[in-house]
Amino acid sequence: MQSFAERFSILAEARSPLCLGLDPSADLMRAWGLNDDPEGLRRFCDTVLEAAGERLAVIKPQAGFFERLGAGGMAEMARLIAGIRAQGALSLIDAKRGDVASTMEGYAQGFLGASSGFGADAMTVTAYLGFNALKPVFDRGSATGSAVFVVVHSSNPEGRSLQNARHPDGRTVAQALADDITAFNGKLGAGTGPVGAVVGATVDPAQAAILNRLPQSLILAPGVGAQGASLADVGANFAATRGRTLPSVSRGLLRHGPTVAGLRQAIDRHRDEAWRMWA
Amino acid sequence: MQSFAERFSILAEARSPLCLGLDPSADLMRAWGLNDDPEGLRRFCDTVLEAAGERLAVIKPQAGFFERLGAGGMAEMARLIAGIRAQGALSLIDAKRGDVASTMEGYAQGFLGASSGFGADAMTVTAYLGFNALKPVFDRGSATGSAVFVVVHSSNPEGRSLQNARHPDGRTVAQALADDITAFNGKLGAGTGPVGAVVGATVDPAQAAILNRLPQSLILAPGVGAQGASLADVGANFAATRGRTLPSVSRGLLRHGPTVAGLRQAIDRHRDEAWRMWA
Repeated sequence: MQSFAERFSILAEARSPLCLGLDPSADLMRAWGLNDDPEGLRRFCDTVLEAAGERLAVIKPQAGFFERLGAGGMAEMARLIAGIRAQGALSLIDAKRGDVASTMEGYAQGFLGASSGFGADAMTVTAYLGFNALKPVFDRGSATGSAVFVVVHSSNPEGRSLQNARHPDGRTVAQALADDITAFNGKLGAGTGPVGAVVGATVDPAQAAILNRLPQSLILAPGVGAQGASLADVGANFAATRGRTLPSVSRGLLRHGPTVAGLRQAIDRHRDEAWRMWA
Repeated sequence: MQSFAERFSILAEARSPLCLGLDPSADLMRAWGLNDDPEGLRRFCDTVLEAAGERLAVIKPQAGFFERLGAGGMAEMARLIAGIRAQGALSLIDAKRGDVASTMEGYAQGFLGASSGFGADAMTVTAYLGFNALKPVFDRGSATGSAVFVVVHSSNPEGRSLQNARHPDGRTVAQALADDITAFNGKLGAGTGPVGAVVGATVDPAQAAILNRLPQSLILAPGVGAQGASLADVGANFAATRGRTLPSVSRGLLRHGPTVAGLRQAIDRHRDEAWRMWA
């Protein structure tokens, strides 16, 4: 069985390392002229999939914007994930789930692998309830060739103070999490493991030092575009994880909809830029 | 419009402060003789609602165990929440969502208030991405008479090290969050505000000092039963938030199913104990 990291590597080479984030807010639905209901959401997803047309490696639905519309919204997320799979791309649910171990087992069964509730290839999680409470998702990620991305250094400024609080040994919360991730992946062998990290594309060069603690992880880097970072910034600041970084663009790309042609042009432009980031 | 705190206070008096947590794991479904699919989940919820029959103040579905079964599972959660409302009880979705502000706006629209995607009365959230990123859920909680419970001190031991990391001013992560909650509620006026806290029922007397920082919050206290704390422990350790604590029992009560009679007896026993906790 191929790991998520192996599948990503092949797709990134063939298509681009770019990750397209989907955050269909009420504002975006309005801008696209869609009704803000599950049927409108289906049209949104169909348009995105048509524009993406086997040109993207990773598509990342942001769960909150589907859950927003209740169970009907979640049914559209499940349908979208099947569509992503049909294009040979990887689906990454940006769910940021984080709970005690018994509940994380539930989320693992819900999100990770083709036979899970939603059938996705990867998910994001948070660690307020402890890194070790996340073990059930890591184990299922490993068993199903899926990936789990733990938020380490988020892209928003509000997260800074908690993530920089210090343990008695002097490490920050973010640093200790990065070390925990690396220890977990290391136990499974050499190479890139199933546990990745979220490190906001908005990091400055000093903050980017956290990447040196993550030698066996894929890195999801959200915050490109609307939050102020460019793909060139990612290329410069994420040099330490070259070839293992998924730069994620959402609003900055989706604002080029709602036409398939406009969206596809924007996708192609961002794909090229993401490739150059690695060149 | 009545606040969640006002509605809880009346119901706790009339019924009991007990909160019943629902975590239909694969193991529990098997123990109840149910198929582990959305139809089995519907039977599970119907049995619980029949046993509860207007005797409980708060019912807390654990989102992970519904999401486990995909969009069909989430549809059952929506149906359950409508059933809870029909019994005049309060629904609290144990979702532990935590993301950047724009996404928290999505979760607020999804969970808080009768007109939201799932139509619930309250939800739990986590703050790894920062307390201020949660503002959209607090604001919607305040506007719709709903409540938001921020995880401060979780019931599981794995959470201890992160929650005890220290800010430069010497406060732990948990203490700073408690102070942020109190500052937010305080700005809205006197009395119990819309932002509550999750403090595990498993706290020892020293850890319970965190409650003194939460004078205007409801406190959700999970971990009664299976995780080792008793309702008597909650009565002793949560004296500082007397009348504002929701002790939550899940597996310790559900193991008395699957018959309605067995479950109802267990509910009544726990209700009485929860009342005595306040006596």
